[in-house]
Amino acid sequence: MRKILLQLAVSLDGYIEGPNGEFDWCFTDQDYGMSSFFKRIDSVFYGRKTYDLVLSMEGEAPPGFPKLKEYVFSNTMDNVREEATLVKGDIKSEVEKIKNEKGKDIWLFGGADLISSLMNLQLVDEIILAIHPVILGGGKALFKEIDARTWLTLTDHKIYPNGLVFVTYSIKK
Amino acid sequence: MRKILLQLAVSLDGYIEGPNGEFDWCFTDQDYGMSSFFKRIDSVFYGRKTYDLVLSMEGEAPPGFPKLKEYVFSNTMDNVREEATLVKGDIKSEVEKIKNEKGKDIWLFGGADLISSLMNLQLVDEIILAIHPVILGGGKALFKEIDARTWLTLTDHKIYPNGLVFVTYSIKK
Repeated sequence: MRKILLQLAVSLDGYIEGPNGEFDWCFTDQDYGMSSFFKRIDSVFYGRKTYDLVLSMEGEAPPGFPKLKEYVFSNTMDNVREEATLVKGDIKSEVEKIKNEKGKDIWLFGGADLISSLMNLQLVDEIILAIHPVILGGGKALFKEIDARTWLTLTDHKIYPNGLVFVTYSIKK
Repeated sequence: MRKILLQLAVSLDGYIEGPNGEFDWCFTDQDYGMSSFFKRIDSVFYGRKTYDLVLSMEGEAPPGFPKLKEYVFSNTMDNVREEATLVKGDIKSEVEKIKNEKGKDIWLFGGADLISSLMNLQLVDEIILAIHPVILGGGKALFKEIDARTWLTLTDHKIYPNGLVFVTYSIKK
């Protein structure tokens, strides 16, 4: 079965965006394992707001960013761009259907609401974090409204000379 | 000058206590570098609530726990037990005075209010975290109300087979 991979850059205090939505604290001077991550996936999950952000940045994707099949999660939208798929209604069964289709793994990109929904439905398989050596002091928290204590297994790690701590956990179910 | 070391166990989602104040998720089956940490320090900083907790647990300190000179930070208390020192009023100058005294480094143990006060006054020198492989979903957050983006330098790390990620950062000033 395909896996859902939550993969994000995060500050040491657990924010995926700064207080004004900023990402300028994210290291972009090298690959940081992204190209091997991109080899694992062929699809991406977006919440509505994240999808809007992606649309607004069209054409600005970093080099090496693969073409991914997009799934947009929203109960309020009626349509998405032609090549994307809108997911609404019973998220659990919809996501299980997608996981059972043939294909590579799926990148759970965000936002925070979609992440907590899928975490709480126990649909996420791995958490891969690039913990940046910075305290932002505010912003959008990666984990919020998680229902239950969730134990993880650290399956991989890499420490970069600039202090980036790259950790991969599988979720104990 | 003596350093102030923030050293704590934390969940991957940044809590130092679970939703009901619980610590039962903290690994205690081995030393995890605590004995070498204890060699660096001879004093400890407590906020009022943390001090109350320490008093209530008297006699239950884990084996190997050193005798430390205690400083209790509170503007509402009038006295603390005889061997402890009450710190009130102008925290910045009081703490700078203590840092300039002879002695080993100082353990900033908590709680969260004292941690943010000293962080925001730029009085903390190192952050040493035992990041546990667990998402608690709620509780007392380690970092709250930090005023400004703070960059860190990763100076040490150790990864344990059970998934504990032990990281030491110095604070860029």
